[in-house]
Formats: sequence, C-alpha cells, structure tokens
Amino acid sequence: MNSDGSEPALIGIDWGTSSLRAFLIGRDGAVLDRLSSPEGIMHVPDRDFEAVFIRLVGPWLSKKPLPILASGMITSRNGWVETPYEQLPLGAQGLARSLVAHETSAGARLHFVTGATALHDSGPDVMRGEETQIVGAAAMGLSDGLFVMPGTHSKWVIVESGRIADYATYMTGEVFAALREHTILGTLMQEGPFSEEGFDRGIAAGLKSKSRLLHALFHVRTLPLMGQMEPSMVADYLSGMLIGSEIAAELENGDGVAEVTIVGRSDLANRYERGLAQARVASLRAPDDIVAIGHFVIAKAAGLIS
Amino acid sequence: MNSDGSEPALIGIDWGTSSLRAFLIGRDGAVLDRLSSPEGIMHVPDRDFEAVFIRLVGPWLSKKPLPILASGMITSRNGWVETPYEQLPLGAQGLARSLVAHETSAGARLHFVTGATALHDSGPDVMRGEETQIVGAAAMGLSDGLFVMPGTHSKWVIVESGRIADYATYMTGEVFAALREHTILGTLMQEGPFSEEGFDRGIAAGLKSKSRLLHALFHVRTLPLMGQMEPSMVADYLSGMLIGSEIAAELENGDGVAEVTIVGRSDLANRYERGLAQARVASLRAPDDIVAIGHFVIAKAAGLIS
Repeated sequence: MNSDGSEPALIGIDWGTSSLRAFLIGRDGAVLDRLSSPEGIMHVPDRDFEAVFIRLVGPWLSKKPLPILASGMITSRNGWVETPYEQLPLGAQGLARSLVAHETSAGARLHFVTGATALHDSGPDVMRGEETQIVGAAAMGLSDGLFVMPGTHSKWVIVESGRIADYATYMTGEVFAALREHTILGTLMQEGPFSEEGFDRGIAAGLKSKSRLLHALFHVRTLPLMGQMEPSMVADYLSGMLIGSEIAAELENGDGVAEVTIVGRSDLANRYERGLAQARVASLRAPDDIVAIGHFVIAKAAGLIS
Repeated sequence: MNSDGSEPALIGIDWGTSSLRAFLIGRDGAVLDRLSSPEGIMHVPDRDFEAVFIRLVGPWLSKKPLPILASGMITSRNGWVETPYEQLPLGAQGLARSLVAHETSAGARLHFVTGATALHDSGPDVMRGEETQIVGAAAMGLSDGLFVMPGTHSKWVIVESGRIADYATYMTGEVFAALREHTILGTLMQEGPFSEEGFDRGIAAGLKSKSRLLHALFHVRTLPLMGQMEPSMVADYLSGMLIGSEIAAELENGDGVAEVTIVGRSDLANRYERGLAQARVASLRAPDDIVAIGHFVIAKAAGLIS
C-alpha cells in the first residue's frame, strides 16, 4: 500500500473568516476526500476551534495519524494559533520553513502556515491563506505572472519563479457593500438579476476614473436621478466602477500586463473576467483545489510527507 | 424709512437636509436678523414645511409682507417645491429668471431657487443650495477661480465672470462615514481628539494615491495592525487620505491651481485648509453668510427688491 498514491498522506485545511474547507490528500497530491462547513472563525462558539476540528476532520484520522496543515484566517489573532507574517519573496520552501506546530489535546499535530507581508513605503500589506493558494497554483504549472484573487479584499499577486514576488490588496468588495448599504448611492438601486449593461458601463467608468474615483461615485446617484440609467442597473454599475478602477490601477502599476490568472469560480470571479475583457486583457482561470495542492507542496517541502 | 438700508426688504432661507438657516435682509443687503433650526427637510413631520415656515419665519412677516427666497434641498423631490436644474454657466441673472413661485395658504409668496446641473460625458452632476452661496461669494467681491465647499458631498466649483462655469461633486464625507462605521477599517480606530500627525500622514498618502485609492485604503487597517500607527491616529488618517485624494484629483484636473477659496467655517473646512497647505496650494476663506448675499443678489436681479 505504501506506493499507492491514493493512500491518505495529508490533511489540508483552508479555514477562513466565514467558512472552512478541508481536504484529504493522497501521497501523489490528489484530493481523495473533501468537506466544507460554514464554521469560519467568526462562527465558532467560544473560539473552540479544536471541537470543530475534531468533529469535522477526526474521522479522517481514525485509521492512522496524518500530518495536518492549516492556512487562512485561522492563523490570525482571532484564530486558533497566531502565526507571524513572512516577508517576500515567498514560496513553498519559505512557507515550509516557517510552519508553526500545535498539538491538540487528543495528540493530533497541526502545522499552521504563516501569512505573508509586503512592505511598501506607502504601508504594509498582509495576506493569510492566499499564499497557500498561490504556491499551489505555481505547483500546478500555472505560469508566472499576475494573479487576481477576487474577494471582500481582493489581492493582485505577482508570481516570479513560482514564488510570491509582490502583491497589493484592494478593499473593493467591502467598499462596495458599505456604499450600497450605508450611503445615498443605495437609495436609487433596484434589486434584480445581473445587469450586463449596468456592469459594463460601470467598468468603462471605473477604467477611466483614474484619481477621481470619489467624484465618479457620485454618478452612481445622478445617472438614475436624472433618468440616464435604469434603477435595475445601478448596483452593477457601482460594482463595475469599483472593479474597473481596481483593474485600471493594477494595469497602470504593471508594465504591459497581457494576461491575468483569476483564482476562484465565484460570481465575483466572473465579474473580474468580464472587466478584464473590457480592458482588453486576456484572463485564464486557476483550477479548483489549488489550496489543497498548496498544502501538499508545503508539506512535502517541510518533509512531512515521506 | 424707505431709504434706510436697515429696513427689512427680503427673507432668505437656506433649507437643507439636516438644518435650516433663515435671514432677515435689509435693503442694502445687510443681515438684520437670523435664525437657525435643526428642522432640515428630513426632520419635518408629515413634510409639513409650511407649518415650520410659519412658526419660524412668520414673526418677520407680521409687520408687512416681504419677498422670500428659499434655496437648498427644500427645492428637491423630497422638499417643499421641486425646482428644475439649470444648466451652466449660471449666475445671479440666470437664477433670477428661473425662480419658481409658490404661495402659502396664508398668502405669503415664496420664490424657490433652482438647482444647477453640470453635464459631462462621464455623468451629470447636481447641486441645490451651493449655487446661491457661490453667487453670494461672487457678489461679495471674491475673485473668480476655484472654490471648495466641504460637506457630506463636497463641491469644487469653477467661477468665471461671477458665474458658475463648471463643478464636480466628491462623495468624500459620506464615504468616510460609511468606511469608518461599516467596514473593517473602523475596528482598529480609537476615538480621541484630532490627530494632526494621523491627518497629515493621510493627506500625504491621499495626494500620492492616484488611481489606487481602493488599495491605499487597506493601509488604514494594516498600519495599526502592524504597529506602524497609533490607533488614536487612524480615523484622521482615513479622513486625510480621502481629502488628500480629492485635492489631488482636482489639482490634476485643473491647470496650475494656485489658490482655492474655502466656503465654510466648520472643522471640515479646517481640514481642507490643512490639506491644501500640504499640497502647497494657497487658500482663503469665504465670509460667513454668503448664502444671504446670494439670496439678496438673486432677488435684486429678479426685481423683487425695488
């Protein structure tokens, strides 16, 4: 059995703020089993992470002990075990060297992945969890270049030689929610299905907004107010404007970006794909489960899988 | 008495969303009496604006009828009498021609000032109330040029030959409130007195942010998170970043702006003064009560004051 790639060799846990995913991974890196749960770190009563861990992952450990890697916000101050931020450049070797071990009361040994920080004059940048996905994407043969990871706080990551060379976080998703729900911009919005026209007009406005985003935002109010946009388009117009501004900023920041790899399969990832197309930048999609591959290559590099 | 400049000749009302101010104005334009009230249009029960008007302004009308001008959000869809938006350029003559008259049930005759719209390819811009202030400032001998009117939605107004030639609205104030109160950026802020250091660092970051504002905002979180900024500075850092971004956008937009006139005496106006100084742009302050002067010159131009 030892030479069988389908024999379980590792458990990888991607434990975020609002949900967690866990993977049972074989000796060859294949995902043998998986589970997901809404028990993100903000939804764990009394911060009893061990109880959630044992209930969800325990069955995979019943036959024999396995090394366990955990990444994501579970490694933050509000998580289970806080790990430091490692500096760039950072790849599988660096993450393997900086794992933080923790033993549960039942004797299971977890290894927590560190976060990554980018130090710029304008201020530091931080990530937890995305570094493991990027390392996984690199291991799957995705070429170096620019990656975008859509989310509440989207990340644009420059990968060189399979390592994270630099990255920047954008508040886009959270700003969108705050503006829609807590400013006058939401008052003229009508709920409805995705409006391609509203979104595309928003992307165009965002790509052109340059430094005047705080001014362009006012058009989210005046266009419907003056009868120049249907209320059913307005939310997607705002979404497009923010994503367009973000894309334009990254394209200005980079030298002739020709292609971007989008990490994720969500509706939000579809919006970035549509926005990049309007900006005439090619995009491709990272495969699912790159985070499990990331856990696998980090564990390999750390000697946790023989 | 007719030749006495201190004889009441006009009532001017600046009736906004959250408050109103009214002025008893003499034949020579001097303010003879004034009152203010928190009864902005959002705080008038059953939209019974006439009742508020009679209670507050009625005493000034007890001796003899006077012409009355009202400006501000009271002329909007949610106000008393909705007036149209006039196009630019727009000055006292244009506003005088487009007054909208309304008689109360008690026979008082009010003249509502129209709003002003700026039509740009990127979207329309709208104002209600500020046009009257600008006309007043021009009549007080403030030179043509660039004016900033700090507020929830700040306005940057280009004045040429005493008329509004163009303007742009920025969502700065409302975006600040939404981000502070409804995003993760507020969680590391500590209330306290104004932090000059935090604000000045924010202005510097905002002036440099260019198209990357959605990225720069993330530093409002990471700087305190990484111990690079005291929590007591963070709210003012965010304030400075947004105001700095706005100032930089307007300076890029204009050709060699050397001086800006700030309308307002609020704490917010002080912040713009400080931000402009850091951007090496001179600023001066418009006098108080320019809105009453605006009412006066529009009423004069409309022939309402003999």
